[in-house]
Amino acid sequence: MRVKAVIEYLGTAFAGWQVQPNQPTVQAALEKAVTVAVGERTRVEGAGRTDAGVHALGQVAGFDVPDDTDLYRLRASLNGLTPPDISVVDLAEVGDGFDPRRDARMRSYRYTIVNARPPSPLLNGRSWHVYPLIELALVARLAKALKGPHDFGAFRASDCQSDTTVREVHHSTWTRDDHLLTYDISANAFLKQMVRVLVGSMVDVALGKLDEDEFLGLLEGGDRTEAGRTAPAEGLMLVSVDY
Amino acid sequence: MRVKAVIEYLGTAFAGWQVQPNQPTVQAALEKAVTVAVGERTRVEGAGRTDAGVHALGQVAGFDVPDDTDLYRLRASLNGLTPPDISVVDLAEVGDGFDPRRDARMRSYRYTIVNARPPSPLLNGRSWHVYPLIELALVARLAKALKGPHDFGAFRASDCQSDTTVREVHHSTWTRDDHLLTYDISANAFLKQMVRVLVGSMVDVALGKLDEDEFLGLLEGGDRTEAGRTAPAEGLMLVSVDY
Repeated sequence: MRVKAVIEYLGTAFAGWQVQPNQPTVQAALEKAVTVAVGERTRVEGAGRTDAGVHALGQVAGFDVPDDTDLYRLRASLNGLTPPDISVVDLAEVGDGFDPRRDARMRSYRYTIVNARPPSPLLNGRSWHVYPLIELALVARLAKALKGPHDFGAFRASDCQSDTTVREVHHSTWTRDDHLLTYDISANAFLKQMVRVLVGSMVDVALGKLDEDEFLGLLEGGDRTEAGRTAPAEGLMLVSVDY
Repeated sequence: MRVKAVIEYLGTAFAGWQVQPNQPTVQAALEKAVTVAVGERTRVEGAGRTDAGVHALGQVAGFDVPDDTDLYRLRASLNGLTPPDISVVDLAEVGDGFDPRRDARMRSYRYTIVNARPPSPLLNGRSWHVYPLIELALVARLAKALKGPHDFGAFRASDCQSDTTVREVHHSTWTRDDHLLTYDISANAFLKQMVRVLVGSMVDVALGKLDEDEFLGLLEGGDRTEAGRTAPAEGLMLVSVDY
């Protein structure tokens, strides 16, 4: 039986989602837990490879379990077997061919900025502390320009391996609630570190370190070196994956 | 010059607000920072003595600094000198007699419960994980009954030293947002661990471990042993103090 799992995790202690030798990763922790729970070596695939330190409210994973598995009990077992910073929020049976990565229609990320002079300890490890104040109208304008299909070749990790760089952004907004600046973006798919480079670049425009027209021009394609900085991983969260 | 400070802190790593020998406390960290910044041994007084593990969004402290102190620069110095889990959010000059504890008219606390079967790693250390589901209408009814002056002698730490046990509750509400249950309470003052025992007792009523009428009867006075459990410190936050 093929299973779709919704996973929440605090990324702080992990070297990201993907299995790496001698590093604690979310995928490795889940594979170990599922293997123990079902009694056979199991491979767990994820919808998105979050970077080290990035959090998830609704990462989606897929794996196979024996046909007679009670998913209600399996979820309880997995939450007992995984470390406390990983939680299996939901488990459901899906079609045999379910591929969490390829079948995903849309991914949604949220980036949190504490935009005030004093830092906010309650959001340490879950946000990026930026000062001076960012003008909401300006970043809102930049965010709006991201909507639709664009060539995001300039907005990705320098070691990003993807051959195609066009992605379609469905939703892209900034909101401010007192000292909290939140950026929400949904797209069919993302390049490596794309959200972090977009956020870093928009902040750079807001702080006068990158020209607005230059930023907008990069949406037609460009090189990583022309965009702004990469925002820290800890402010980023994978909110949900739609199928 | 007398200064009023608004302090935010993540309580996880501290043995509470109040100075204790050989323990990291928020008060000790602030006294050390102020002493270094102004160059003389300074005593810092707080509005409320939060327990070990309790957080604060708006604790208020008072201390004296030399008359010519630039508060703008002092705040920056203090945020450099305190550990990252403490932040001085605001500093303002106040009258010489300002006593953050005695002058406070109202304190507001928030308690956060993750009320779902799976735990929520993103709220670990900042919430209490409770399951089965709690009926909002029931706890809302209990919370409403707390309003006004009551004898909270049953709802406090067994070692609470206070001679008087009547406190006046101005605001007391539960709200639910999906799996998050939040309790907000404001009162003129609180007994030791009063919020935690109130929350633990209301949860006990909701889960059938304490009788509703018994709970309501304790609002006329009673003994600690008659109330419910003490909710964990990590779900509690001192939100603000009004003067």
